[in-house]
Amino acid sequence: MLTNIRTTRIEWCDCDPAGIIFYPRYFEIFDTCTTVLIERALGMNKIEYLKAYNFAGHPLVETRARFRRPTRFGDDVAIETKLVECGRSSFQIEHRLTKQGALAVEAFETRVWVAADGGDPPQIKSQPIPDEVLARFVPA
Amino acid sequence: MLTNIRTTRIEWCDCDPAGIIFYPRYFEIFDTCTTVLIERALGMNKIEYLKAYNFAGHPLVETRARFRRPTRFGDDVAIETKLVECGRSSFQIEHRLTKQGALAVEAFETRVWVAADGGDPPQIKSQPIPDEVLARFVPA
Amino acid sequence: MLTNIRTTRIEWCDCDPAGIIFYPRYFEIFDTCTTVLIERALGMNKIEYLKAYNFAGHPLVETRARFRRPTRFGDDVAIETKLVECGRSSFQIEHRLTKQGALAVEAFETRVWVAADGGDPPQIKSQPIPDEVLARFVPA
Amino acid sequence: MLTNIRTTRIEWCDCDPAGIIFYPRYFEIFDTCTTVLIERALGMNKIEYLKAYNFAGHPLVETRARFRRPTRFGDDVAIETKLVECGRSSFQIEHRLTKQGALAVEAFETRVWVAADGGDPPQIKSQPIPDEVLARFVPA
Repeated sequence: MLTNIRTTRIEWCDCDPAGIIFYPRYFEIFDTCTTVLIERALGMNKIEYLKAYNFAGHPLVETRARFRRPTRFGDDVAIETKLVECGRSSFQIEHRLTKQGALAVEAFETRVWVAADGGDPPQIKSQPIPDEVLARFVPA
Repeated sequence: MLTNIRTTRIEWCDCDPAGIIFYPRYFEIFDTCTTVLIERALGMNKIEYLKAYNFAGHPLVETRARFRRPTRFGDDVAIETKLVECGRSSFQIEHRLTKQGALAVEAFETRVWVAADGGDPPQIKSQPIPDEVLARFVPA
Repeated sequence: MLTNIRTTRIEWCDCDPAGIIFYPRYFEIFDTCTTVLIERALGMNKIEYLKAYNFAGHPLVETRARFRRPTRFGDDVAIETKLVECGRSSFQIEHRLTKQGALAVEAFETRVWVAADGGDPPQIKSQPIPDEVLARFVPA
Repeated sequence: MLTNIRTTRIEWCDCDPAGIIFYPRYFEIFDTCTTVLIERALGMNKIEYLKAYNFAGHPLVETRARFRRPTRFGDDVAIETKLVECGRSSFQIEHRLTKQGALAVEAFETRVWVAADGGDPPQIKSQPIPDEVLARFVPA
């Protein structure tokens, strides 16, 4: 199962007047974690893999998160990101963000593989994940 | 049941290289919607109500969202926000964001009423929602 | 001279642990103000005008800002945006953000009109502002 | 003269529909760079130094930036941050952001040392930088 661990620091700009992280920032962090997981699986950065597979991205169709303890500017956190399920055109990711070993946030996301679908304004539509990618996402 | 409807426009700065909204921006929008719902219920703005009830905020403990269709810069959207449940120290909010009448995102959030709890660094802890606030949140 | 006035509210999510706006948020506000100024001058929204003139945007080459008094969440502010100079392929914008009539921030920006220029990764390059646009930017 | 170099990666979430960084994100990056410069000079993290010197922060009173070449998601950049001038209650910072050695952005900022000044809503006011801090900022 694909797994990746990143560390980052919660910054002043991530925090709100209560002095704790403003929760949408977690989703920015998680989005980057998912990108890094895929980059490492495919051995390409995002600009490259969008082009190599001629697709438009992997937007979310669903997410949920539990915030168990707050984080503050200056906190060093680690995020463990896992591909927990992979279908024909969608996949599920789990993130666990910890602070000094204690679980602070856990999140789940379901993403779809989409291509540009013409139209004006341009539309996107779900399409099958390429076999070559599936082979990296779910090694036999 | 407390309800509020706001309209806003998805801006260029909310969108990513795929040309659609970067999903954490939805949570920023929803956070503001929750604030406005409470401000209207209490007849005070957030600076005033944080002070009036001597508390530190109403952070999320859980959220989930379904993204049903993408939005783009220039899209005018409406967000209907409802208080769907209210406990002793927590409450649940539902948001439905529509674009030209079609549901684009639905989200749920559970928030707790917290006070500063001293400590170094300062901690926060959950506390009962004041009766006066409850009376506004859940009119008899 | 093209001028536009918008009003907006500084939100909780715009503010940092000092309780005042985190200054990069001002640039997000100003970027939207510039977009709205151009949209009104051209009678098209940004998606439409990017397409109509087949260009890639009007990124900044320079900006400067003075922050004269802080703003806080809940503050209603007005932003007056003016096109103060217009060259062949660049233009200058001035923003004045006021709170209850008092100047809080003034900012200047120089933007260029750019087109996609192929390459891998794709490059952008400056190009002349179309005559039709100039005629709207600087009415004879 | 105090100097610090940080490296960071421009992420998908930093970029706009033109595929390049949305320029306010540079100011978020620079704000963190200034914080890190001060943290290293003082040997404390920001939570600690705000407390140690009983002040409310070092907001900007002025900034300017030149954007010389765009950056994109996936770009690794380096930011050299210098304290270029230090007065009694304000100081100036210069940032130079490079991509593969080429200058992409240069920015200047003037910041003031402020304390909470009571009032309702709370005000802030400029105050002298403590001698102990000056000694670290401008070693004799």
